[in-house]
Amino acid sequence: MTFSLEQAGRQAWQWLEAASAFSETRDIPREGVTRRCATREHRELLEALTEWMESLGMAVRRDNAANLIGRHASATPGARTLLIGSHQDTVPNGGKYDGMMGVILPLALVKYLRENAISLPFHIDVVAFSDEEGTRFSSTLLGSKVLAGTFDPEMLEATDGQGVTLESALEAFGCDPARIPEDRYRPEEVIAFLEAHIEQGPQLEQASLPVGVVSAITGIERHQITIHGMAGHAGTVPMALRRDALVGAAEVIRHLNALCKETEDLVGVVGKIENAPNGVNVIPQTTTLSIELRSPRDAVRRRAREQLLEQIGASLEALNLTFDQVQTYEQSAVQCSPWLTATLEEAVQDSGIDPRVLFSGAGHDGLAMAELCDIGMLFVRCRGGVSHHPSEAIEPEDLTAAVEVLAHACQRLARGQSPA
Amino acid sequence: MTFSLEQAGRQAWQWLEAASAFSETRDIPREGVTRRCATREHRELLEALTEWMESLGMAVRRDNAANLIGRHASATPGARTLLIGSHQDTVPNGGKYDGMMGVILPLALVKYLRENAISLPFHIDVVAFSDEEGTRFSSTLLGSKVLAGTFDPEMLEATDGQGVTLESALEAFGCDPARIPEDRYRPEEVIAFLEAHIEQGPQLEQASLPVGVVSAITGIERHQITIHGMAGHAGTVPMALRRDALVGAAEVIRHLNALCKETEDLVGVVGKIENAPNGVNVIPQTTTLSIELRSPRDAVRRRAREQLLEQIGASLEALNLTFDQVQTYEQSAVQCSPWLTATLEEAVQDSGIDPRVLFSGAGHDGLAMAELCDIGMLFVRCRGGVSHHPSEAIEPEDLTAAVEVLAHACQRLARGQSPA
Repeated sequence: MTFSLEQAGRQAWQWLEAASAFSETRDIPREGVTRRCATREHRELLEALTEWMESLGMAVRRDNAANLIGRHASATPGARTLLIGSHQDTVPNGGKYDGMMGVILPLALVKYLRENAISLPFHIDVVAFSDEEGTRFSSTLLGSKVLAGTFDPEMLEATDGQGVTLESALEAFGCDPARIPEDRYRPEEVIAFLEAHIEQGPQLEQASLPVGVVSAITGIERHQITIHGMAGHAGTVPMALRRDALVGAAEVIRHLNALCKETEDLVGVVGKIENAPNGVNVIPQTTTLSIELRSPRDAVRRRAREQLLEQIGASLEALNLTFDQVQTYEQSAVQCSPWLTATLEEAVQDSGIDPRVLFSGAGHDGLAMAELCDIGMLFVRCRGGVSHHPSEAIEPEDLTAAVEVLAHACQRLARGQSPA
Repeated sequence: MTFSLEQAGRQAWQWLEAASAFSETRDIPREGVTRRCATREHRELLEALTEWMESLGMAVRRDNAANLIGRHASATPGARTLLIGSHQDTVPNGGKYDGMMGVILPLALVKYLRENAISLPFHIDVVAFSDEEGTRFSSTLLGSKVLAGTFDPEMLEATDGQGVTLESALEAFGCDPARIPEDRYRPEEVIAFLEAHIEQGPQLEQASLPVGVVSAITGIERHQITIHGMAGHAGTVPMALRRDALVGAAEVIRHLNALCKETEDLVGVVGKIENAPNGVNVIPQTTTLSIELRSPRDAVRRRAREQLLEQIGASLEALNLTFDQVQTYEQSAVQCSPWLTATLEEAVQDSGIDPRVLFSGAGHDGLAMAELCDIGMLFVRCRGGVSHHPSEAIEPEDLTAAVEVLAHACQRLARGQSPA
């Protein structure tokens, strides 16, 4: 074998290190990586990616939404396309791996296939989505929506912090936003979309596994609850006459936590709380808190919501408190295609790794790509489950494992594994 | 009778209305009263009080801490002095009655005694303490500490928001701060200190009583608790692996509330909470909260503190959270003298009112005056239990009841009622 999996893993590591330099920040270990859509850092990264792709004999193009797509073409006549990729953008002061690892791993895969003369009956299109985090324009999933054909042109009017519209930023980047609709893939030409991404959670690390297979991308809902009590002097109002909004908030937090702990496939958090007047010697008058529920099964999430709101209503009434509740966000869960999940599980086993299936508690480009085609996802272990932070870290040897799993998956797809 | 109790009550109401005009604010109904120590408003108020006192034949003086003292002298040779008074200062945007009512009521009492030719075997010194709230210099109980001889000269270096020291403010007010030690009363010349004050709570209103007798001024302790958890992505960390600081805070709030509700003579509150990073989709890392416990019985408060800290420790450990706890404040309770409480109870009965004894959950000048002499307090009903707010309100006829109770109390003291 002229180019080993270990070499492919090391190559991925080197490319990832090189890619992290394209950042608004200078001191990457301390400040992490900040790379937003349609910026100088984005342009410089795409130039480097283009060079690496062309060195692999790939045909490279940019679309009108600043996505970069490199094709590793098949010699098979009438070949369809397997899309593999992730996003190039980061949150402010994010890590080196969230997104970028999913762009680099398929490049290392292509290098491994090419060096070992492994031919496939389908094209591999490696995609660097321009914008998934939405850091610059609050334009979450911009790149994947364009490829899936669900991009809403109204989004072009979104502005960044300096008042620059997405439209003019894309134009300055060399794109023609009016031609975005032409950039969609046609469903019949696509086999599936695969994404490799760091787990952003601790489950693989705790199980000592380098990779895991994703069953679904979570659904999410958020609510804002405002509890109305009655301010008063903390020394002079007898306990029995108090209407303490923060005491009500404590009950909300307790109910949510208990419900999520006892319900399978449900997580939730009260992440944000604001209390007024918030004085050490004043009975709290108004407490506002956020509620977030996530589940890969929408029915579980909706049932939990009803149960929770019922419990909250009863507890707050018993405390002589009133409350307003408003749902601020809802995103349905997206299932990974069972046949792809099965293929990835088998590819994990082919690699000598215990197959672990878990759901993604975070959103990913697959949410949008599922409108176009079947999707599958591979998670790679990340240190401490930490992401969106300069200290985001992976183990170099896990890149080797991930390339191996992707290679086995491609070979299984080549042998005709497809929807039942 | 040439001057009735009703007339005395109406006179008190008129003086209170007039006094409220000496305020930094212009629109009293909306903005309330703001009157700080050693300001123009303080000076103008003392000029008005002096005029009213002199119209009652009282001998008026200002001391070196900007207290105003008017003496209604007794003809009895070697007479001792009954001190009656309260503070002239307010919190920012406070009410018309907190403090001021306790200055005006003894003036109305003196007018009633004088007009009805009721002579007493003791002097009555009516005191308008310069500063109890500590709004300007954080110099709580300044006026009463000076009269009690417990004033710490280091306090003179305290500065207001503009950097003016208490010392220079007093000098500009015409005081000689170096001579403050001369302003203390000698214990042997004083019978007792009485204060009338609005209740600042809802108990008298709920019991439909115009006045109540105070048994003790609460002890207070405050703590700051900082709970340390582990931030994380709210979608990707399984419930069982979370260390959510806000979930711990909810347990603290719950324990405190339950303990105070089930313990007699104990109130407490978590009034303040700060959560970090406080994002809707981030597991809370650090939550800081205040704990306040108040009781008229120090032993009850200390036992409650131990019990609470034990419960908090056990709950947070079970949640895999750590915490720091620091006591930020402690003030022991001060008991009103039982013989004075009994005298006031009888005076309330003399006035045809059901005697109700309650403790003060707020601090008062009596905390300092108790170092000098026996103290007694009369509470007057206030609307909705509201204080420290522009909407602070009393019923005019309750002033009549309060003057009557003070008159009966004086007559009982004159008949020789004194410590057993």
